Amino acid sequence: MPQDTAVVALSGGMDSCVCTAIAVREHVLAVLHLNYGQRTERRELRAFREIADFYEVPSELRLEVSVEHLRKIGGSSLVDRRIPLRTSGVEDGQVPSSYVPFRNAHILAIAVSWAEVLGARYVYIGANERDSSGYPDCREEFYRAFQQVVDLGTKPGAGIRIATPLIRLTKAEIIRQGNELGAPFELTWSCYAEEERACGVCDSCRLRLKGFAEAGLRDPIAYAR
Amino acid sequence: MPQDTAVVALSGGMDSCVCTAIAVREHVLAVLHLNYGQRTERRELRAFREIADFYEVPSELRLEVSVEHLRKIGGSSLVDRRIPLRTSGVEDGQVPSSYVPFRNAHILAIAVSWAEVLGARYVYIGANERDSSGYPDCREEFYRAFQQVVDLGTKPGAGIRIATPLIRLTKAEIIRQGNELGAPFELTWSCYAEEERACGVCDSCRLRLKGFAEAGLRDPIAYAR
Repeated sequence: MPQDTAVVALSGGMDSCVCTAIAVREHVLAVLHLNYGQRTERRELRAFREIADFYEVPSELRLEVSVEHLRKIGGSSLVDRRIPLRTSGVEDGQVPSSYVPFRNAHILAIAVSWAEVLGARYVYIGANERDSSGYPDCREEFYRAFQQVVDLGTKPGAGIRIATPLIRLTKAEIIRQGNELGAPFELTWSCYAEEERACGVCDSCRLRLKGFAEAGLRDPIAYAR
Repeated sequence: MPQDTAVVALSGGMDSCVCTAIAVREHVLAVLHLNYGQRTERRELRAFREIADFYEVPSELRLEVSVEHLRKIGGSSLVDRRIPLRTSGVEDGQVPSSYVPFRNAHILAIAVSWAEVLGARYVYIGANERDSSGYPDCREEFYRAFQQVVDLGTKPGAGIRIATPLIRLTKAEIIRQGNELGAPFELTWSCYAEEERACGVCDSCRLRLKGFAEAGLRDPIAYAR
């Protein structure tokens, strides 16, 4: 029987879904979703809700948050349609146009505030360094540094731990682990561009398809091409 | 002539006003304000706008952000009217009911995202450890740790520095410094409880009045008692 509550950042993508599948083995789930004006906001929200339903998370342990200011601030092709999404492939060492400046710090700040109020001792986030898109806020060091901030910036005794169970895995390993844990991949949404059928060519679709191919598994969602 | 832009977190309180007065000596100002469902939200917003007017900050370098989720998350007498505000004085070593869990991490995350997009190299925040209300996220160590997070979580070369020029000052020293720099104290708002006339008895009013008394200066705002 799970004891401690864990706040899980659940975007509705594949990684956050596997992260949820990992967290639910040991914790009571409290799931957090951010709408931040990204192109596929509505579709991701639907994925969040369906995954939360799948894991039978009660309404008081679901938090949907709108952070309008990330769109206001701009600077990313995910929130600013004037900046083109890259479809040419993931280069090494480049920070792509889809990078939302410092976004994961916002997710963690909200998750930690909520964890502190709930008395939850864990915050799970499905960040992944190895097969990430090259975002600086997906690196393991970033989460280690944020742990320090949490230790210093929360009430004495809050004792909140940030867990990044996917940080060192390849996409294929994430998919295999999700598969073993029965993660509902059919409910997830990864595409940056479309909300009806995944485009298959944006960075996020490419990483997902490559991961399924390498894992030798079939991606259950539909693609436009 | 100021060169680099600095994002300044400007709540509309006395400390953030003095912080602005310090930043404007060396930087082009970009001012950030958060509405987070706090009791005196409208009054603080007015103070922000009037201070921004005073420093002639152009509209494209003002950012007003609503972070509704801090109220949704709750856990503080500042955002939840069911939790009483303390008026009995500031005890040592206690985290008071007005503490909004991990709030300053939200302010910093937003300020850093905006700085990254603006190309600003500084984020100023008027946090103060010595005469603070005992909030864990007002300690110098917290900001040092957050600097690490910024270094690791922003684009290579962003080079954003977090400046906390008031962190070690007493309230009286902050007031004296603001007075020397011509900070418009008459436009500031500190009271946690009221929006017409400052209550004079909440933690924030007490710290302010004590500071003016110790600085030997007159507080230009009106108090109910």
